Amino acid sequence: MSNIVDQYRITKEPYYRAVADEVELFEAAYSVRMPMMLKGPTGCGKTRFVEYMAHKLNKPLITVACNEDMTASDLVGRFLLSAQGTEWQDGPLAIAARHGAICYLDEVVEARQDTTVVIHPLTDNRRVLPLEKKGELVNAHPDFQIVISYNPGYQSLMKDLKQSTKQRFGGLDFTYPEHAIETEVVAHESGANADIAGKLVSIAERSRNLKGHGLDEGLSTRMLIYAGSLIAKGVNPQAACRVALVRPITDDPDMRDALDAAVTTFF
Amino acid sequence: MSNIVDQYRITKEPYYRAVADEVELFEAAYSVRMPMMLKGPTGCGKTRFVEYMAHKLNKPLITVACNEDMTASDLVGRFLLSAQGTEWQDGPLAIAARHGAICYLDEVVEARQDTTVVIHPLTDNRRVLPLEKKGELVNAHPDFQIVISYNPGYQSLMKDLKQSTKQRFGGLDFTYPEHAIETEVVAHESGANADIAGKLVSIAERSRNLKGHGLDEGLSTRMLIYAGSLIAKGVNPQAACRVALVRPITDDPDMRDALDAAVTTFF
Amino acid sequence: MSNIVDQYRITKEPYYRAVADEVELFEAAYSVRMPMMLKGPTGCGKTRFVEYMAHKLNKPLITVACNEDMTASDLVGRFLLSAQGTEWQDGPLAIAARHGAICYLDEVVEARQDTTVVIHPLTDNRRVLPLEKKGELVNAHPDFQIVISYNPGYQSLMKDLKQSTKQRFGGLDFTYPEHAIETEVVAHESGANADIAGKLVSIAERSRNLKGHGLDEGLSTRMLIYAGSLIAKGVNPQAACRVALVRPITDDPDMRDALDAAVTTFF
Amino acid sequence: MSNIVDQYRITKEPYYRAVADEVELFEAAYSVRMPMMLKGPTGCGKTRFVEYMAHKLNKPLITVACNEDMTASDLVGRFLLSAQGTEWQDGPLAIAARHGAICYLDEVVEARQDTTVVIHPLTDNRRVLPLEKKGELVNAHPDFQIVISYNPGYQSLMKDLKQSTKQRFGGLDFTYPEHAIETEVVAHESGANADIAGKLVSIAERSRNLKGHGLDEGLSTRMLIYAGSLIAKGVNPQAACRVALVRPITDDPDMRDALDAAVTTFF
Amino acid sequence: MSNIVDQYRITKEPYYRAVADEVELFEAAYSVRMPMMLKGPTGCGKTRFVEYMAHKLNKPLITVACNEDMTASDLVGRFLLSAQGTEWQDGPLAIAARHGAICYLDEVVEARQDTTVVIHPLTDNRRVLPLEKKGELVNAHPDFQIVISYNPGYQSLMKDLKQSTKQRFGGLDFTYPEHAIETEVVAHESGANADIAGKLVSIAERSRNLKGHGLDEGLSTRMLIYAGSLIAKGVNPQAACRVALVRPITDDPDMRDALDAAVTTFF
Amino acid sequence: MSNIVDQYRITKEPYYRAVADEVELFEAAYSVRMPMMLKGPTGCGKTRFVEYMAHKLNKPLITVACNEDMTASDLVGRFLLSAQGTEWQDGPLAIAARHGAICYLDEVVEARQDTTVVIHPLTDNRRVLPLEKKGELVNAHPDFQIVISYNPGYQSLMKDLKQSTKQRFGGLDFTYPEHAIETEVVAHESGANADIAGKLVSIAERSRNLKGHGLDEGLSTRMLIYAGSLIAKGVNPQAACRVALVRPITDDPDMRDALDAAVTTFF
Repeated sequence: MSNIVDQYRITKEPYYRAVADEVELFEAAYSVRMPMMLKGPTGCGKTRFVEYMAHKLNKPLITVACNEDMTASDLVGRFLLSAQGTEWQDGPLAIAARHGAICYLDEVVEARQDTTVVIHPLTDNRRVLPLEKKGELVNAHPDFQIVISYNPGYQSLMKDLKQSTKQRFGGLDFTYPEHAIETEVVAHESGANADIAGKLVSIAERSRNLKGHGLDEGLSTRMLIYAGSLIAKGVNPQAACRVALVRPITDDPDMRDALDAAVTTFF
Repeated sequence: MSNIVDQYRITKEPYYRAVADEVELFEAAYSVRMPMMLKGPTGCGKTRFVEYMAHKLNKPLITVACNEDMTASDLVGRFLLSAQGTEWQDGPLAIAARHGAICYLDEVVEARQDTTVVIHPLTDNRRVLPLEKKGELVNAHPDFQIVISYNPGYQSLMKDLKQSTKQRFGGLDFTYPEHAIETEVVAHESGANADIAGKLVSIAERSRNLKGHGLDEGLSTRMLIYAGSLIAKGVNPQAACRVALVRPITDDPDMRDALDAAVTTFF
Repeated sequence: MSNIVDQYRITKEPYYRAVADEVELFEAAYSVRMPMMLKGPTGCGKTRFVEYMAHKLNKPLITVACNEDMTASDLVGRFLLSAQGTEWQDGPLAIAARHGAICYLDEVVEARQDTTVVIHPLTDNRRVLPLEKKGELVNAHPDFQIVISYNPGYQSLMKDLKQSTKQRFGGLDFTYPEHAIETEVVAHESGANADIAGKLVSIAERSRNLKGHGLDEGLSTRMLIYAGSLIAKGVNPQAACRVALVRPITDDPDMRDALDAAVTTFF
Repeated sequence: MSNIVDQYRITKEPYYRAVADEVELFEAAYSVRMPMMLKGPTGCGKTRFVEYMAHKLNKPLITVACNEDMTASDLVGRFLLSAQGTEWQDGPLAIAARHGAICYLDEVVEARQDTTVVIHPLTDNRRVLPLEKKGELVNAHPDFQIVISYNPGYQSLMKDLKQSTKQRFGGLDFTYPEHAIETEVVAHESGANADIAGKLVSIAERSRNLKGHGLDEGLSTRMLIYAGSLIAKGVNPQAACRVALVRPITDDPDMRDALDAAVTTFF
Repeated sequence: MSNIVDQYRITKEPYYRAVADEVELFEAAYSVRMPMMLKGPTGCGKTRFVEYMAHKLNKPLITVACNEDMTASDLVGRFLLSAQGTEWQDGPLAIAARHGAICYLDEVVEARQDTTVVIHPLTDNRRVLPLEKKGELVNAHPDFQIVISYNPGYQSLMKDLKQSTKQRFGGLDFTYPEHAIETEVVAHESGANADIAGKLVSIAERSRNLKGHGLDEGLSTRMLIYAGSLIAKGVNPQAACRVALVRPITDDPDMRDALDAAVTTFF
Repeated sequence: MSNIVDQYRITKEPYYRAVADEVELFEAAYSVRMPMMLKGPTGCGKTRFVEYMAHKLNKPLITVACNEDMTASDLVGRFLLSAQGTEWQDGPLAIAARHGAICYLDEVVEARQDTTVVIHPLTDNRRVLPLEKKGELVNAHPDFQIVISYNPGYQSLMKDLKQSTKQRFGGLDFTYPEHAIETEVVAHESGANADIAGKLVSIAERSRNLKGHGLDEGLSTRMLIYAGSLIAKGVNPQAACRVALVRPITDDPDMRDALDAAVTTFF
């Protein structure tokens, strides 16, 4: 039965370029099984980081993309009809708790505030998950840890974590890496050379200064990698930047002009 | 089992008249399996373009018309009752991911923002689709690509894609083609002659100048083809324009007068 | 299996009194299978017209009274439990598409905007209906046509068709017929004589002038037929008008007085 | 199978005291199977009237108390699970249409506007009920008639019948009967003598003058019958009026004083 | 089958201290099976009164705590799956109607207005309960009576009974009993002596003067009984009042000071 | 069957440091089975207290983390499909009532107000739980007690307990313990020495003064224990405080500076 989590093992070391002491801090947090919260803008590497840590700690990683329609049953499990009547099926959180995986709830603020309440008993010293519909109390496996991510820029009055949830997690901040590191990351991941990667990072830095002045978010590392991939495939750099950077991020004509101008400056 | 996607193959080359370098850019995007976003007004040819590309790339195309009631299960799959209990049935997104089709989510902003979250793991480098209810992690077929369309004119505060979704896609803009090309398209598709097709395009161009001044949208290429078809069937051009162009697009008496006058100018 | 639509054939020619060239235009539209939209106030004959055309074209007619609670499944179909597990059952739209009926969606604005999205693939040149829950792509029968009706007077910000839906239909306007024709219709349908029918039409014309000045709608042809039927059964004309015309249309005392006065004028 | 409606036959003639020509008008309406709408305040005898007419016309009467949670399926029918899979069960409207009963939808404005749309095909000359989920088109039995009631005083912007519904019905107004008739009704139904009944009616008349001046509704005939019943059982008239008339109708101390004073005036 | 209601019989006479003529009035109401409405603040003895009357009248009592999520099915019944397909299960209202119990709907305003509509046919002279989903019309058992309670202080625009519901019930007002009687009740129920009980009632009376001046409700008789029970168990009176009276009723520091001062005055 | 609650027994005495007379008061409340309400901010020890009391009283403890999506069925129980049809399964509240556990509803204000109504019959002298869907009336086991917790700081107009619920519970206030006691608790639970624990408490005290001046809540005892655990594992105290205290509690740059300054003062 334990092999249900084997499909969640990360067999190849993911590429991750550490920025500060985040790897050591996460290891310490894991050693006391402290639940962790990764904060930062979209596409800056939070998901990659948790994949890297899961590989380093040699633990299976179960990722759940949270959304507003997610019910507690989607996390915890449900009864399914079978030929013999009903049969319980663990949800991803129950699988992780029972078999000792790291459970990563991505974009947790998307979930309804109250759905997140089901993780509370797993985050204090009881480390239990009550399967109320089944009448079972799962004691978490010693290897189990819970990790959540969220983007503080999205916080609104309607969608924020409750204090009683926040206070159950240690926190790590993430942001875009500095120029040289981001260039290295873009080059490594896209196959574009360092010169092109550096230019793409420079364009992104300009866009990030526009955040809050017409752009909701700046260009992310992930988008730069897309642009670099197209260029590495032989696409004209201006066209590649148009397709992968400017068109997706905004429909505002002025913003597009500003970003197109930035592209022209560098290519 | 692989023949489930055969019904989605496009056997006859769809008529598509390229406007710029969109065909080449899409091919490059497909070569790195970049998720793509097609933007533009209704009826300007986005759906036709993706059909054309699917045929050119020789890949099956699974189209999903998105709507507000669409749940994650409608995309991903669900358990159905069978004589043996329950049986999993892949949804269109899972079929496409598993068997290597292009999955085209038409009018994606209609879907609930949070339903779109289920496509995230397929759009980053993991290219996986977690079937959480089934406890299975589908690794996308190498041929799989995801394409979405949306009409920026519909963007409202309530209905827009989240930045964390937008940043996962390359973007291509679509608009109505220029006069000569649109005339060629209308003539080809409707069976009307070039003279009539050109007049229809001229009427459409007038209507597009009224967009935002009493009309929500101008006349689309698709509507011109309808009008051309009626004329080609022998319907009086003024009646054909009334039925296929003016009556559908507005109930406002002044706007109808303005459009009827445009029709009279040309026919 | 094809006889499932036989119950939808209209065996007796419905009475319909053409007002302009609407019969010819509809025939031309059907010849190119253009989806059609019938616009006009309640009770002016839209439903009767489509019945007449279905009979004239010798096609089965499947009518769906749209409502807000109608789901996509109500149109497209669903799985039902059977002794062998689940069994697919086509909805009215799927039956019409598969077997070649005219599908008439009455009062389509009542349906949720996004439910109407399911008809899109049937209205462009693909003419397909994806049964996503079943994983089947139905190619529409060559005889299939889709017709919708709506009452522009009901249009509100909340309930209007989307441009991307409107632009997929040709349009025909309906209104109350002119005095002589409406008199002929009322007499024919109610069994009342031409004198009485003409008086009823005159009362209706007065009420229609009050539309927007205290009445939401004027008296419809259908209501006149009801009144005529009562009179033909021997009911006193004033009582018949009170029951069939005045009481149903308004609870406002002033409006009732105005309408009662109109009745007294003629009877 | 026809005996399913036998339980809905009214075996004993209900007591009904005609006020004007409503009995004759209803008979004429039934003779042409015109759908009827009974309007008037709560407790003034609409339900009793329709019971009386059903008995007089010797037709079964199926009454449905409408409410906001009522779905189209509650009226039309649904599939139930059985040992053989699923089995269709007609709802009250389908039973009435199929077997020829009068179907009385009580307080129809309580139902969602769009649920009422399902009765439309039964109210025009088609007289059919499409069981869309079953794929069956029920032709109404020749005896079938539909009757609805509503209280115009409750009309709000949110809850009113649509014009396209209203125009499908003939209308009869109901109100409290005049003093002598109401006294006769109260005495007959409660077992109280004519003197007491007359005093109760006088109290009610005072309360009805307060409608809109602190009371939402005046005392209804039904309430007077309750009070009369208590008095006939030996309860002190003032206590009976307090329990059956004043306490139920308002919690406002001033209104209670005014009504208590009216009671004291007569008893 | 009749023994299903035996579990609802009240075998031991409940303690109830009559305040006025409410016992006699209820007996008279029951003798004509008038539906009754008990009005008054929380914890003043409405539930106890109905238990007492059920015992006195020797009828089973089925109590339903109403809530917003309660559907008509929760009252009326539903189909359950069984080995033979589906099997109907009466809800509490149907059990009471069929077998002759008193059905007590506690805090009926909590239920959705329109759910309460299902009780209408049981409250007029028809005394029937249509089980629409089952297609059965239950004629109420001669012993059946319906009783509802509500707290007028909770009335809001959103939550009030409809006039058409209110007018179907006789009404009895309840409030806290006068000093001597309430002291007797508290002493009897808590086991505390009369001196302590009297002091507790005095504290409550002070709190009731604060209603609307910082407190939503005054202290109820039920709370005094809790406090008395703790004191009878040997708890210090001030601590007992803190735990059972002050802490539960308010979180406002000023109100707490005022109430603590009242406690200190008496103990 | 009784062993279903054995998994809810607390075998090892939980660490709890009494602050005042709360242990004695709770024992007295339990002796009369008074329902109890524990009030106080998040992470100050309410859950630990109820675990401690359950162990001291030697009763099983069933904890339910309340949330907005919790239905009455989640508390009370439901029918599940089995090979023999449907089978009733008690929910946590029914298990506790039937078998004599303490049922602890954590963060009860999260549940819908009206869901909490189901606990009412268990909190007055009837001590019954009606399983309406099953038609069974459960008499609570003599050992059964109900305990709820809530955080008054979260009270809003939308989410507060109803008076009729509040008045059914005795109340105990909880807050953060005084300096010396909290230091002892942090040292005991985290493994950090008293000096470090004391510094952490001092940082927390500063943060609690910021509550309402930029922070929604101050640092909780639970967070201090997390920080202490990291320090005990060898993590640098400033990094430990950053991860476990500052990052989780706020995203506001000024607040972070203020809290970082407090950390630097002590470490």
